[in-house]
Amino acid sequence: MNILAFGEVMLRFTVAEKMMLEQSDQLTMSTVGTGVNLLSSLAHFGYKTSLMTVLPDNPIGKKAAADIRKLGISDHNIIYKGKNLGSFFVELGQGARPQRVTYQDRLSSSFCMMDADDYDFEKALVGVEIVHICGIALSLNRQTRNAALKLAQVAHERHKTVCFDFNYRMSLNEEISHETMKKRYQKILPFVDIVFGSQRDLTDLLDYQIKDESKLYQEFCHDYSINFFAGSKRSFQDGKKYFEGFLFHHDTIYRSAAKELNILDRIGSGDAFASGVLAGLIENWEFTDILEFAIANSILAQASMNDSPIFSKADVFHYVDTEGKNDLIR
Amino acid sequence: MNILAFGEVMLRFTVAEKMMLEQSDQLTMSTVGTGVNLLSSLAHFGYKTSLMTVLPDNPIGKKAAADIRKLGISDHNIIYKGKNLGSFFVELGQGARPQRVTYQDRLSSSFCMMDADDYDFEKALVGVEIVHICGIALSLNRQTRNAALKLAQVAHERHKTVCFDFNYRMSLNEEISHETMKKRYQKILPFVDIVFGSQRDLTDLLDYQIKDESKLYQEFCHDYSINFFAGSKRSFQDGKKYFEGFLFHHDTIYRSAAKELNILDRIGSGDAFASGVLAGLIENWEFTDILEFAIANSILAQASMNDSPIFSKADVFHYVDTEGKNDLIR
Amino acid sequence: MNILAFGEVMLRFTVAEKMMLEQSDQLTMSTVGTGVNLLSSLAHFGYKTSLMTVLPDNPIGKKAAADIRKLGISDHNIIYKGKNLGSFFVELGQGARPQRVTYQDRLSSSFCMMDADDYDFEKALVGVEIVHICGIALSLNRQTRNAALKLAQVAHERHKTVCFDFNYRMSLNEEISHETMKKRYQKILPFVDIVFGSQRDLTDLLDYQIKDESKLYQEFCHDYSINFFAGSKRSFQDGKKYFEGFLFHHDTIYRSAAKELNILDRIGSGDAFASGVLAGLIENWEFTDILEFAIANSILAQASMNDSPIFSKADVFHYVDTEGKNDLIR
Amino acid sequence: MNILAFGEVMLRFTVAEKMMLEQSDQLTMSTVGTGVNLLSSLAHFGYKTSLMTVLPDNPIGKKAAADIRKLGISDHNIIYKGKNLGSFFVELGQGARPQRVTYQDRLSSSFCMMDADDYDFEKALVGVEIVHICGIALSLNRQTRNAALKLAQVAHERHKTVCFDFNYRMSLNEEISHETMKKRYQKILPFVDIVFGSQRDLTDLLDYQIKDESKLYQEFCHDYSINFFAGSKRSFQDGKKYFEGFLFHHDTIYRSAAKELNILDRIGSGDAFASGVLAGLIENWEFTDILEFAIANSILAQASMNDSPIFSKADVFHYVDTEGKNDLIR
Amino acid sequence: MNILAFGEVMLRFTVAEKMMLEQSDQLTMSTVGTGVNLLSSLAHFGYKTSLMTVLPDNPIGKKAAADIRKLGISDHNIIYKGKNLGSFFVELGQGARPQRVTYQDRLSSSFCMMDADDYDFEKALVGVEIVHICGIALSLNRQTRNAALKLAQVAHERHKTVCFDFNYRMSLNEEISHETMKKRYQKILPFVDIVFGSQRDLTDLLDYQIKDESKLYQEFCHDYSINFFAGSKRSFQDGKKYFEGFLFHHDTIYRSAAKELNILDRIGSGDAFASGVLAGLIENWEFTDILEFAIANSILAQASMNDSPIFSKADVFHYVDTEGKNDLIR
Amino acid sequence: MNILAFGEVMLRFTVAEKMMLEQSDQLTMSTVGTGVNLLSSLAHFGYKTSLMTVLPDNPIGKKAAADIRKLGISDHNIIYKGKNLGSFFVELGQGARPQRVTYQDRLSSSFCMMDADDYDFEKALVGVEIVHICGIALSLNRQTRNAALKLAQVAHERHKTVCFDFNYRMSLNEEISHETMKKRYQKILPFVDIVFGSQRDLTDLLDYQIKDESKLYQEFCHDYSINFFAGSKRSFQDGKKYFEGFLFHHDTIYRSAAKELNILDRIGSGDAFASGVLAGLIENWEFTDILEFAIANSILAQASMNDSPIFSKADVFHYVDTEGKNDLIR
Repeated sequence: MNILAFGEVMLRFTVAEKMMLEQSDQLTMSTVGTGVNLLSSLAHFGYKTSLMTVLPDNPIGKKAAADIRKLGISDHNIIYKGKNLGSFFVELGQGARPQRVTYQDRLSSSFCMMDADDYDFEKALVGVEIVHICGIALSLNRQTRNAALKLAQVAHERHKTVCFDFNYRMSLNEEISHETMKKRYQKILPFVDIVFGSQRDLTDLLDYQIKDESKLYQEFCHDYSINFFAGSKRSFQDGKKYFEGFLFHHDTIYRSAAKELNILDRIGSGDAFASGVLAGLIENWEFTDILEFAIANSILAQASMNDSPIFSKADVFHYVDTEGKNDLIR
Repeated sequence: MNILAFGEVMLRFTVAEKMMLEQSDQLTMSTVGTGVNLLSSLAHFGYKTSLMTVLPDNPIGKKAAADIRKLGISDHNIIYKGKNLGSFFVELGQGARPQRVTYQDRLSSSFCMMDADDYDFEKALVGVEIVHICGIALSLNRQTRNAALKLAQVAHERHKTVCFDFNYRMSLNEEISHETMKKRYQKILPFVDIVFGSQRDLTDLLDYQIKDESKLYQEFCHDYSINFFAGSKRSFQDGKKYFEGFLFHHDTIYRSAAKELNILDRIGSGDAFASGVLAGLIENWEFTDILEFAIANSILAQASMNDSPIFSKADVFHYVDTEGKNDLIR
Repeated sequence: MNILAFGEVMLRFTVAEKMMLEQSDQLTMSTVGTGVNLLSSLAHFGYKTSLMTVLPDNPIGKKAAADIRKLGISDHNIIYKGKNLGSFFVELGQGARPQRVTYQDRLSSSFCMMDADDYDFEKALVGVEIVHICGIALSLNRQTRNAALKLAQVAHERHKTVCFDFNYRMSLNEEISHETMKKRYQKILPFVDIVFGSQRDLTDLLDYQIKDESKLYQEFCHDYSINFFAGSKRSFQDGKKYFEGFLFHHDTIYRSAAKELNILDRIGSGDAFASGVLAGLIENWEFTDILEFAIANSILAQASMNDSPIFSKADVFHYVDTEGKNDLIR
Repeated sequence: MNILAFGEVMLRFTVAEKMMLEQSDQLTMSTVGTGVNLLSSLAHFGYKTSLMTVLPDNPIGKKAAADIRKLGISDHNIIYKGKNLGSFFVELGQGARPQRVTYQDRLSSSFCMMDADDYDFEKALVGVEIVHICGIALSLNRQTRNAALKLAQVAHERHKTVCFDFNYRMSLNEEISHETMKKRYQKILPFVDIVFGSQRDLTDLLDYQIKDESKLYQEFCHDYSINFFAGSKRSFQDGKKYFEGFLFHHDTIYRSAAKELNILDRIGSGDAFASGVLAGLIENWEFTDILEFAIANSILAQASMNDSPIFSKADVFHYVDTEGKNDLIR
Repeated sequence: MNILAFGEVMLRFTVAEKMMLEQSDQLTMSTVGTGVNLLSSLAHFGYKTSLMTVLPDNPIGKKAAADIRKLGISDHNIIYKGKNLGSFFVELGQGARPQRVTYQDRLSSSFCMMDADDYDFEKALVGVEIVHICGIALSLNRQTRNAALKLAQVAHERHKTVCFDFNYRMSLNEEISHETMKKRYQKILPFVDIVFGSQRDLTDLLDYQIKDESKLYQEFCHDYSINFFAGSKRSFQDGKKYFEGFLFHHDTIYRSAAKELNILDRIGSGDAFASGVLAGLIENWEFTDILEFAIANSILAQASMNDSPIFSKADVFHYVDTEGKNDLIR
Repeated sequence: MNILAFGEVMLRFTVAEKMMLEQSDQLTMSTVGTGVNLLSSLAHFGYKTSLMTVLPDNPIGKKAAADIRKLGISDHNIIYKGKNLGSFFVELGQGARPQRVTYQDRLSSSFCMMDADDYDFEKALVGVEIVHICGIALSLNRQTRNAALKLAQVAHERHKTVCFDFNYRMSLNEEISHETMKKRYQKILPFVDIVFGSQRDLTDLLDYQIKDESKLYQEFCHDYSINFFAGSKRSFQDGKKYFEGFLFHHDTIYRSAAKELNILDRIGSGDAFASGVLAGLIENWEFTDILEFAIANSILAQASMNDSPIFSKADVFHYVDTEGKNDLIR
């Protein structure tokens, strides 16, 4: 199985020892992004993966590519051009003190400067079976939007399985009208087979007025010929945090159990869920097994530092089999 | 609003990675003290703050002053003299293993060597509306005791609002008789408007014999013409830890709800509460809102490394509004 | 009281900041092993301790010996020979993500290369009252097996109290038949006075068919003239982890209460329990007090970094007295 | 003496332990910039300093402001607006391996987004005697260019001493024609009293054709009514590195001796020299003493980590007095 | 150009902050080995590289493979089997205090356990033009010796360019007779085209009695049909250290100038030289240019942390062009 | 050989990565002092050593004792009493930037609080052959002065070899008159056999008026029946630093060659020299060999982090034999 992901790469700076930015000058750097996270997890599940992106043509770009290779992802579809890489700072949370993310300029990044026509999508798709596109590309700028759309179209025409992750964040789109954003998503969805998102993405962004969850997903999947629609959500009860997921396919919603969360670093939880679902679909597992596996992958990822999950299938199955109660492997 | 605090500055050495002193040589240093902590929090709430203290006239003193400025506190009232700064070591706790503090000599510090007459309190009070005095000065030595008392008196005469924090610690006063300590506190209280302390401070230190909490506070406030008396306390239930506070004013006790604690570093919890109460009094909030805010500030501070709270009002309100359930801000 | 332990020393490499091996190049090194852990704890309780082992005759061996001395253990019975020291990597766990231990070659270590006859056990036993032998020596190779057996025999003949810890791990013995392993344990047990192990060690390894726990221990202690048999175990309830222990003596099982665990680093929990039991037996405490103390020592050890407990008796009693609710000592 | 500097603030990320970016994820962050560096040094010489700049209105901006205060610089003239702060990575050098700087996007920074008219220069200049403007503002974009020019003009009209640092870097201006850059510098110079630059700045950027250094500086200072022109340069001899400086005033070149360099971190060497010269001019020292002091300040700065010099006058004099031969102060 | 290297991978543990093992518990880990170092450098020069080796089938093996990919080397020819990886500790030197390396067991490593017949050399050689074999394989054990020999033979038969590095170390062969070692080298040399070694390797190991360097190399290359023989050496003069190299081809010795060394970390200097020579031969540069480039690559590598050079051709040319005098790139 | 040293123990806090105190919060802690340093070196040379001192009876004291044991020094003569330990901060130097030491209060330390009569010197001297007393005890306070004097007397009476190190520092004695200090030294010298000091100690402190070095030492040794007088000094030539030593015995001055210094951390250089001299005297080496060895030990110590030398005799001989030119041991 050969999976290509398209998306922005970012530098993440994590403040040391659970301190806040004003408290420490010590940072640990990592290379992240929805595509990186998803492929890292899939590579650790044993699949061939390749990232299509643009990195700056300087030591930062080389560092990022080295990190990407380290995660087990091929760098053959990486283009080196320009000078900037988007970045963000992470202050880890503790109890009632939330983890905090502060973004630095993404729009001047090499990725955002790249025109859709400068990618050779045809060539990148040779031998690829699954293509993953992160919805953030629709929010960044015209270039990333066009590139994402073009890739979806080309991949769809070549009968690749196209996955798409809503990844819709208000804060990234404060200056864009609701109607504009809605149209952008509506434009790409017809080329997509597997969608990751939430109920709220359908009602708030796409303006579906259906309250019944099952009917809502049915209508959405019907409208855009979506084969699979999946998503995760978090809940709170008695001071504890839980994580659960759903998978909608052929008019049926499958649901996972809610599993307790013990968070070290929350970022990338959705990507970990998505890569779990993709692995399950690739392997043709039972849908409930897929969800159990995907939630387990995300639970483990949230109990680990950094965005990119690096758990093998055996690691995830170990969690499933021991119900997360084992606290020592040797 | 312009707040002046008077008190000792100390170096804090925190052992790395939750290790104990015998286990590691790696320390992280920070500059702390009740005055520093309180003003740091008030500065982050947006008020003008200034610390009156004595630091050694050497690289350690300069380092401490740099840290104090970094926290947003003016260093204009700092005097550089002598050679020593008090210090303590912190071993962070985990679960049933308590956080441990080991003090190193405080009595030979520059602060303790300074005579009351060598401070120019009059000048320091120009433009100041609130003065905060830490009760530890009453335990250290004659010089600090006299200086605290003199400042309270001068500030009171100039109609400043004088705040005083009992901060009474048995371990600091092992060689001083109960009667002596009691008299010291009784001497300063008549100049004070706002007092931070606990029920136990009144019964055990000041020898009040009243069991009813409300009547006790009434009597105490009446005896010394105290306008506000506030304090926090911690409790345990079903293996969980909670934190709550009270505010007594005009014969009424206001109480906060008990909020669950998830501690990273407990030191400074009282200072965080006190600065929250002061902010609320400055802003004339409802008393229950003041307590909710002050407890939230302290909950956040205890979930953070180091003694000095650095939360903005928005940070604290965010905790209040989300009931501490949000675990990611971006 | 003078205690000698015999066993392998290992280097432990802990990955920094709760990261996994693929995520970080930063390691913290420590010197560990069942003998080291047990003696470290006993030395911190105030007893004279000495480790009998073999370390490589190079800077690694000197580093290990320095660490051993630092823990308060005498290095006079350490032999320097050969070049290698066994080692393992530790990735700390978080919530549902288990702590993971990966061993590197132990069999080529200086300790495993040493013939039984090259030790001067007679000399080492002079002035010693208690000898502790770790059962792992039975699994490593012929040399360590013979040395352990010989020491047990010699110590028994000289009327020393001989302690033995099953420490049986399947993973270390994959290529050795059940019968072979069973015989090895059966061979050493007749020389032993105090045994640390579990119900499962008796049923699965020694093939006892008795289901009733009390009768099982009775039979076992009778068969090998064991004076004390003790062990600890962990349990899970309502998402919480607990730790408890038992001590069998003269036909009676004594049991501790189950105490809640909050784990920072689980390794060495059994050694912490064993050293607590030994301290109690040395001091002739009530059996229930011994168990309370031993469980407390292990709870604290599991809430601390590294394998070797460094708590004084006062530290452990503090936990017992405050029921683990105190979270700040100053 | 009260000095205001205007200029961009940047985040600096230094790779740990002299590693290169591909080799390590550990970074140490610091807050730098020509204005920050110069004022840090002047503040440590005992002068009142204030930085006029724009920082992002988020945790990064607050962190930068905290660092600026820590260096002893007033933050009262800092404006918080926008979201981005320019940054660069530093890989420290060793011997023949050069220190390497990689810039990340500066043009989308809060500072570059600020219109000249949005600054209240009049207010910022109240009480100020010396104004320093960094020439990089002429290269960044229209907004920074206009702001720098306007400030120079306003300060000149109010009879402030205006300092200007060429700080001309080819690499920042690859897409701007020589003539355009030349005109920009020619436009600001008439408002300037003290200029920091090099012979090459005059010949290559301003197109002076004079080969004789003395005549060249004479002509330049005459053309723009410059009172002082100063600069530093580095040289190599017999495998050693040297640093020296000149100061031109009233038709005379004063030159320092060349002092041997032992570099830990080269960045900020020019700012350290400039602040030394300014201190000397403020104190009316002999010109040769000024140069000796300024070179010493820069030698020390290059032997220290980070861009911002933090040496007191006493520290610099100590180097001068001991001829840099003392290697231990206690 | 496609280069395959065969050889052992090792974990390197470097003690932090130039401390010695007894002084610190902080280590930085890296993945090294002659093959890794050489391919890392060649990959950074822009060539396709692949490492043939055996890594343990556990988290350590995965970590090592991740590091290898990070360096730009393909992991497709890595076999995962067994449990152990050789390792060594590095204490960095300073001035007269030498850098110190302490090896831990290599002979029980997965690499040493692998039989020659278990490698699929034929498959690994498809598409490969240059094969590099490290001579250490001849010293380790029978398996590695046979594997190295078989690969040399197979590659030679398939007309690949075979490179061989003597890498002869007394300390690794203390128990093997001189004659035995000599025969091992004599057995592999007939299959080799390019040899890296020293004059001493020929006289002391292979027992050549020729004193004239030129005639010696002529005889050696003639005896084994060696096309290129190259090597580097270090010298001392007036308290300074120098590094230089030679290349022998068709009866002519080419020599580089001696370049001054400023060492941060000496290990891997020979591998850096060898990869420079290989790059030059691949590009058909003048022999003196090749040597200048190879020495420059090694000078830079010795001024950097860790064994594996990560300099691009541009980096090396920059050193050559600036004669190593530039100390800042931005 | 059994050596007892008497003296103050101090905590040393070294700022990380060659930063200055204002630049970093990261410290590395170590346990030092003239006695600790000297015994550490002698223990690493293979002698039995024991430190007589007082440490605080709290976690800091236990940490210090653990470090002392780690260095190979017996802790049996350590008394635990009081609460404070003297400390100092170290900012490492670079080139012309000197290393800087800032002391924190020593006079309130447990060591300074201890009366001479509270030590059991008789018992501590059992089995001891050499006693070392650090002259700093004469400067601290009455208690330490009396204790040092009493120990010298008792040891002398019991025919132990008494060593004494002038260690005279102006900065420690600013408030004590020259005559007072002189008398204190004159009082202890009659009990001493081996003295470490400098020419200046004799002329400036003891007021000898003799200019000829040889005659000066002759007179001094004669006056106090000193058997050996030894010392080291540093010099500068052509930008390089050198270190050399002398040993005076029976009217003859023996001198070492001056060896080039490459300093990482200068503190403890005198202690390293002294322990080298003591080792040589113990072993009855030739006087020139003793000096060569002692200088080598100090050169190595100054090229290492921290005060306490940890070089074996083999390490020192290696430097002597390779003339400090070897830069890699493996």
